[in-house]
Amino acid sequence: MSAAPPPVIILVRPQLGENIGKAARAMLNFGLTEMRLVSPRDGWPNPSAGPAASGADIVLANARVYESVAEATADCTHVYATTVRKRGVTKPVVTPEEAARQIRSDVGRSALLFGPERSGLETDDVAVARTILTVPINPEFGSLNLAQAVILVAYEWSKGEALASPPSTEIEPPAPQGELDGMITQLEGMLDEAGFFYPPDRTPVTKRTLRTMLTKPAWSAQEVRTMRGVLSTLAKPRPR
Amino acid sequence: MSAAPPPVIILVRPQLGENIGKAARAMLNFGLTEMRLVSPRDGWPNPSAGPAASGADIVLANARVYESVAEATADCTHVYATTVRKRGVTKPVVTPEEAARQIRSDVGRSALLFGPERSGLETDDVAVARTILTVPINPEFGSLNLAQAVILVAYEWSKGEALASPPSTEIEPPAPQGELDGMITQLEGMLDEAGFFYPPDRTPVTKRTLRTMLTKPAWSAQEVRTMRGVLSTLAKPRPR
Repeated sequence: MSAAPPPVIILVRPQLGENIGKAARAMLNFGLTEMRLVSPRDGWPNPSAGPAASGADIVLANARVYESVAEATADCTHVYATTVRKRGVTKPVVTPEEAARQIRSDVGRSALLFGPERSGLETDDVAVARTILTVPINPEFGSLNLAQAVILVAYEWSKGEALASPPSTEIEPPAPQGELDGMITQLEGMLDEAGFFYPPDRTPVTKRTLRTMLTKPAWSAQEVRTMRGVLSTLAKPRPR
Repeated sequence: MSAAPPPVIILVRPQLGENIGKAARAMLNFGLTEMRLVSPRDGWPNPSAGPAASGADIVLANARVYESVAEATADCTHVYATTVRKRGVTKPVVTPEEAARQIRSDVGRSALLFGPERSGLETDDVAVARTILTVPINPEFGSLNLAQAVILVAYEWSKGEALASPPSTEIEPPAPQGELDGMITQLEGMLDEAGFFYPPDRTPVTKRTLRTMLTKPAWSAQEVRTMRGVLSTLAKPRPR
């Protein structure tokens, strides 16, 4: 866990309630819960937001509404403006990854500004920010919607948090070499009997090839036992 | 640019055309263009897909339809199954970030499987994959939709594209999935004849265990051929 509080997501003049709901869902997926709305076009609350939030109602219920970007960011120490285009403003430009790193290391609360669906943030909104956040995107097809921009930023932020339960792999350790050897010996015996090793002068190379192949998977002790069962079955078929 | 080709996005039994369109849009934003569809519920083409793609029509126009996951992945050397839940299958689990790194360093073409909107991938779909891809998510609110899962993976993949690191490798790429399937089918046929699959109600689980084991080593085409030679020899011994 980082010391800094999670960032606030600020939607500036969002148009459709549905998109506000989707943004809330995107946030909560990655552990962000504080949403602020600056002058939502259709007022607030908006009946279209809830269904689109797919259960992220807590985010919508706690969302606060402000008149201006300045008011919405008044208690924040670091403001990032999310834009796709370059503006006539000279400020540092960071990727979501870099922004997430900064947010986690910053002291104080960060805010991330997202503009209206069609037009994006105005120059005056961007002016409030200290840093510009731009998602590096296909130069020939840049078409991120609001919730997608939010989810990428939230996702990057969550990477540094413990909340994201690390995928616990339940992979068994490889079998001890002795057990692997037993399996290989069993197979070699069967193949020898079946005339696989021919001509004789190729036998060492062929055996090495087989050993290499069977060493590669790093089968667990259980898997080695399964394979020995397979071999035993093939050696002595007992059709039912 | 990495040496490996961009991954193929495979939507398995997608339900709504709208979601197929959104996935296409998500892909193209980050430079992915090859989509495959396995048994889309409402057939293909689907009139709802285009409007949702917001201009990513090229992805939809080139999308190919397959009857099964096996066919859709037949030419791919690395298959990742995107799931949120843990399955009773022991395979390596990676994050989108780790998957992206692997895909870029792999030799051969990778495929990323995404399941149907509601239910996600079936256990048998997951069995085809070598690796499981899980997005680390809020444990109390995991609600990623299809296009969001696609965009996170595509976004991670695109990050590495600026970085030049040609994989210097003398390792043979894994055999295409279709060749691996052929080998597994051959072994299953032999084991079936030999009475290995007993009792019958355990057969699906046993087959899945074997498939998982044989998918694990990432055998090259040559190695798969060698193993098929082994199997053929054991099936029809010709003692000398």
